[in-house]
Amino acid sequence: MPVDFKKLFALIPEIYSSLKEDGLLLASTGSACTANVMTIGWGHIGILWYRPFFIAYIRKSRYTHNLIEETGDFTVNVPPKNFSHVTEFCGTKSGRYVDKVKELGLKIEESKFVKSPSLSECPITLECKVIFKKEVESHDLPSNIMDAFYTRNDYHTCYFAEIVNLVTR
Amino acid sequence: MPVDFKKLFALIPEIYSSLKEDGLLLASTGSACTANVMTIGWGHIGILWYRPFFIAYIRKSRYTHNLIEETGDFTVNVPPKNFSHVTEFCGTKSGRYVDKVKELGLKIEESKFVKSPSLSECPITLECKVIFKKEVESHDLPSNIMDAFYTRNDYHTCYFAEIVNLVTR
Repeated sequence: MPVDFKKLFALIPEIYSSLKEDGLLLASTGSACTANVMTIGWGHIGILWYRPFFIAYIRKSRYTHNLIEETGDFTVNVPPKNFSHVTEFCGTKSGRYVDKVKELGLKIEESKFVKSPSLSECPITLECKVIFKKEVESHDLPSNIMDAFYTRNDYHTCYFAEIVNLVTR
Repeated sequence: MPVDFKKLFALIPEIYSSLKEDGLLLASTGSACTANVMTIGWGHIGILWYRPFFIAYIRKSRYTHNLIEETGDFTVNVPPKNFSHVTEFCGTKSGRYVDKVKELGLKIEESKFVKSPSLSECPITLECKVIFKKEVESHDLPSNIMDAFYTRNDYHTCYFAEIVNLVTR
């Protein structure tokens, strides 16, 4: 079943309000099948090649970057109310050193079309399969953006991922 | 005045419904200050670097591509009802050969923060200023996308543009 565009569009105000406030929870897994969750505050939902796409911006230094490179997919989960401790924790700790799912007691479940897990307590999950990626590079950017976000040469990869499943709970 | 995120988010279902159905009207202008309008059926609204961004996908062969390269900006206009003849015309004719604004009798007005004009009859206009761009390239893409969209080697430029003004009429 392809994703219902109308249903997706109707959910965007809620998804983006969460993206801008506490952030969304991006879940991924590596070939070792250990789930990891990071908080994202930026992202794009839209249409490309007549399909629904999510664009995620992940710095190359992040553990999540390794995992997405391994599996080619991720899920984007909208946190329920009172999940600020989770978005806070997942936005400041690295999965290289902490098992965030275990530490926080997060409930995860298998996704339908991607290897990355979904977060069972979240009211909305987007299952996303990377179709292509582009690297943000220093010569692309104006100096004010460089100064504000890239003084450590730690650039973002833009993952253009098809939304292959939309789950509401 | 920065764009009101809440207002923008609330409008996205309406904007995307139009994007997916008849398309949105992307207006641009070159150094010769002749307005041009093309219909787009793909695009992304979201957040990057804490700012609202619109991503437009424009093939290098398009006249609009020349114009955006000259000015570094464009506007995205949501057509009113009964504008199908306009989206149809602007999606099939090239501004290289036809003055679409004149031919269709479109009412245009100066934008507040960008050189590209706004369409006065449209209920919503996003004024967009290109911050950076990435080229879609053949080695980026899976073969099914290549076969469906790029058999003529006419690739898209992804314009990442900050939404610097949101106008509702």
